[in-house]
Amino acid sequence: MPNPKNQNIVAPGGMIGILGGGQLGRMLSLAASRLGLNCHIYCPETNGPAAKISTQNTVGAYEDVEAVFAFAQNCDVVTYEFENVPAQTAKAANNAAPLRPPALALDVAQDRLREKTFIRDKAGVGVTLFEPVDSVYDLERAIRKIGLPSVLKTRRLGYDGKGQYVIRSEADIRLAWDKMKDTPSILEKFVDFSREVSVIAARNIQGEIAAYPLIENVHKNHILHTSTAPAPGDTGAAGVLARKIMDALDYIGVLAVEFFELPNGEFIVNEIAPRVHNSGHWTQDAGCVDQFELHIRAICGWPLGSTAPRHKMQMTNLLGEAVNDWAELSANPNNALHLYGKTAPRIGRKMGHVNSRLKPI
Amino acid sequence: MPNPKNQNIVAPGGMIGILGGGQLGRMLSLAASRLGLNCHIYCPETNGPAAKISTQNTVGAYEDVEAVFAFAQNCDVVTYEFENVPAQTAKAANNAAPLRPPALALDVAQDRLREKTFIRDKAGVGVTLFEPVDSVYDLERAIRKIGLPSVLKTRRLGYDGKGQYVIRSEADIRLAWDKMKDTPSILEKFVDFSREVSVIAARNIQGEIAAYPLIENVHKNHILHTSTAPAPGDTGAAGVLARKIMDALDYIGVLAVEFFELPNGEFIVNEIAPRVHNSGHWTQDAGCVDQFELHIRAICGWPLGSTAPRHKMQMTNLLGEAVNDWAELSANPNNALHLYGKTAPRIGRKMGHVNSRLKPI
Repeated sequence: MPNPKNQNIVAPGGMIGILGGGQLGRMLSLAASRLGLNCHIYCPETNGPAAKISTQNTVGAYEDVEAVFAFAQNCDVVTYEFENVPAQTAKAANNAAPLRPPALALDVAQDRLREKTFIRDKAGVGVTLFEPVDSVYDLERAIRKIGLPSVLKTRRLGYDGKGQYVIRSEADIRLAWDKMKDTPSILEKFVDFSREVSVIAARNIQGEIAAYPLIENVHKNHILHTSTAPAPGDTGAAGVLARKIMDALDYIGVLAVEFFELPNGEFIVNEIAPRVHNSGHWTQDAGCVDQFELHIRAICGWPLGSTAPRHKMQMTNLLGEAVNDWAELSANPNNALHLYGKTAPRIGRKMGHVNSRLKPI
Repeated sequence: MPNPKNQNIVAPGGMIGILGGGQLGRMLSLAASRLGLNCHIYCPETNGPAAKISTQNTVGAYEDVEAVFAFAQNCDVVTYEFENVPAQTAKAANNAAPLRPPALALDVAQDRLREKTFIRDKAGVGVTLFEPVDSVYDLERAIRKIGLPSVLKTRRLGYDGKGQYVIRSEADIRLAWDKMKDTPSILEKFVDFSREVSVIAARNIQGEIAAYPLIENVHKNHILHTSTAPAPGDTGAAGVLARKIMDALDYIGVLAVEFFELPNGEFIVNEIAPRVHNSGHWTQDAGCVDQFELHIRAICGWPLGSTAPRHKMQMTNLLGEAVNDWAELSANPNNALHLYGKTAPRIGRKMGHVNSRLKPI
C-alpha cells in the first residue's frame, strides 16, 4: 500500500532518517546539515562516524522492527547508506515514513542473481553470462553452459572481493564449491574488461534525473583505490544505461552503477548500489552539487541542481595507516582532505579520502 | 602564564571547543567534521544551529566560569564564534586549554576605542580620526577636534549599525548623546568611502600566514547583503595591512578586517573580527580551503593549504523570509545553498546564504 506521505517534499527543518552510521551516513548528514535539514541515525554501533555529528541518534539492531518503526515515525523520510538492509527492516521503516530509495532497489541489489536477472530482463541492460549455483552439480552444469574462466560468488553479502572465487580449470571446481560452504551462489563468466568505470546518477520524487560524467575506477586488492572523472572517452552511453535501470526500479535517490567496459567499447553492468558510492566521493570538490547533497535533494523532492563538474578530479582512498599522512596531504594546494572520524586505522579500513583537483574543465 | 599545551598540534580525532552556537559555530563544526575532528559547543541556548550537529554540547552561561573551565578541560583547543566573549570566560577557558585566537584579540575587538588605538599605534595601520566620549562635554570637544559629519558609537556591543548615531550638525549633539544613555562611547570622523571591502586572513600556531583575495561588500540597512570576490582592483595592499594586524596581535586563527576604501585608493580599517566572518562565506564554494576549514587548520596547527579561489564568487545573505525561496535558489546550477537550521525566519534574521559561482578564474 503506498504510504500517504510518499509524494511529500521535505523542506528545510525536516528530519531525514538514515539506516547505517558509517562514513557514507556521516557525509550524507554533513550534506543535509548544509541545507538546513536534520538527520536521525539508526545503527547498532555506539558513537560511530555518522551518529556523533547528527541531530538524533538511535542505537538498535536492524532486526528490531519495532525500534525501526519508532525511529521512522520521527522522520519525514528514511534512507540508508548500505544495501544490505534486511527486507523486514525496510518494510517497518516504510510503514512509518517513505523509504527512499524504494524497497525494490534493496531487494534487487542484495542478491547477485536477482540483480543480474533484473538488469538483463527488466531494464534491458547487458550483464555477463550467469547461472544460479546451489550445489556442486549446479556448478558443473553452469560451467558447461558458460565456460571458463568464471567467477563463483555468494548471492548475498559479498563486498570488496569477499565471497568470490575464480575458477580457471576443472580442477578448481571442488575447491571453489567447498569454499562456498553450501551458500546459495552464482557463477558469472569472467569478464576480460578493458577498464572498470561507474556512473553515479539520481532521480528525485518528481522523476527529474541527473548524472555525473563517467568515472574510471582502479582497484587494489579488490578495494577501490582511485576514481578519476570525467573519464576519457565518455560518450554518454553508460549514463543512458544507468537511466534505464533507474526507470525500471522507479528509483528515488542516488544510484551507483559499476560497469565493465569491454575492448569493443560496450558496457556491461557489474553491480549496482542503491546509495551514494565510494567512486562518487570526488564530486565533493568538483564545483557542483556533490553526490551526498544530490541524494538528499532527490529523496527530499528538491531540484537536483548541477552535476557538471568544473574540475577534472581524482579521488584516492586512505586505507588503514595511510591516514597518518594527513598533514602532508592537507598541505598540497590541489587536495581536499576528508576524514571519517574513525579511531583505529586497521589494515584495509577506509579511514578517509583525498580529492585532488587536477585541472579546470 | 603560558599554557603548556599552547604549541600543541591537534590531530584528527581531537576535540575543538567552540564558545557560541550560532551559524558560524555550525559551519566551523561542519568543517572540523570533514577533517575527522570533533567539536564541543558551549552556549547558553538549547538546540541551537551548532550544537545539534556537533559531537558534544554544554548548555551554560558565559559568565559561569566554573562550567567554562570544565568544558575546556575536555578540549584540546578552544575557539569562539563571536568577539564578545567576556574576559573572565576567555581566561577560564585558557586555564584549561589553549584559547585560539588569543585573549588579546578579544580584548582589542570588544572595544572600539581600544581597537582603533591598537590598530593605529601597535599595528601602524590607518583608521579614521576618533576621540573617546564619556560626556556631552567630551562630545562637544571631540567635534571641535574632528569636525562634522561624525559618527557617535558605543565602545562596546554594537553590531549591524546598532548603537550608532550620525551627527551632521551641532543641533544633533544633544539628541545623539541622550541616545547613548551615558554609555562609554567613541566619536569617529565620518568616512566618505568609495567602497567597503574586507580581507579574511589566517595565521597558524607555526606562524604560517594565508589570505584570500580582496572582498567587496554591499550592506543593506547596515546588514551585509552581498560579498563579491576577488574584488576588482586588488593590489594586495589590504592584505598587507591585515598581516600587520595579525602580527601585532600574535594572532592564531582566521581574522576578518573590514576596510573603507577611500577615493584615493587608500584603505583604512573600519573594524576587525577575531573570527570567521560573514564576508568570507563565499570561500565555501570557491574551490579552495574555505574560511571555516582555514580557521580549524590554523588553530589546530595544520598546514593552511590554498586560499586561492578557482571561481569568481558572489555571496548573498538570506534574511528572514528570503529563506522561503530555497527551492528556486537551489535549482540554479551556479548556486550553492547554505541554510543554518534556524526555525523562525524573523525579519532581518540571518537564515542562510547563497554562494554563486560567477566564472572561472
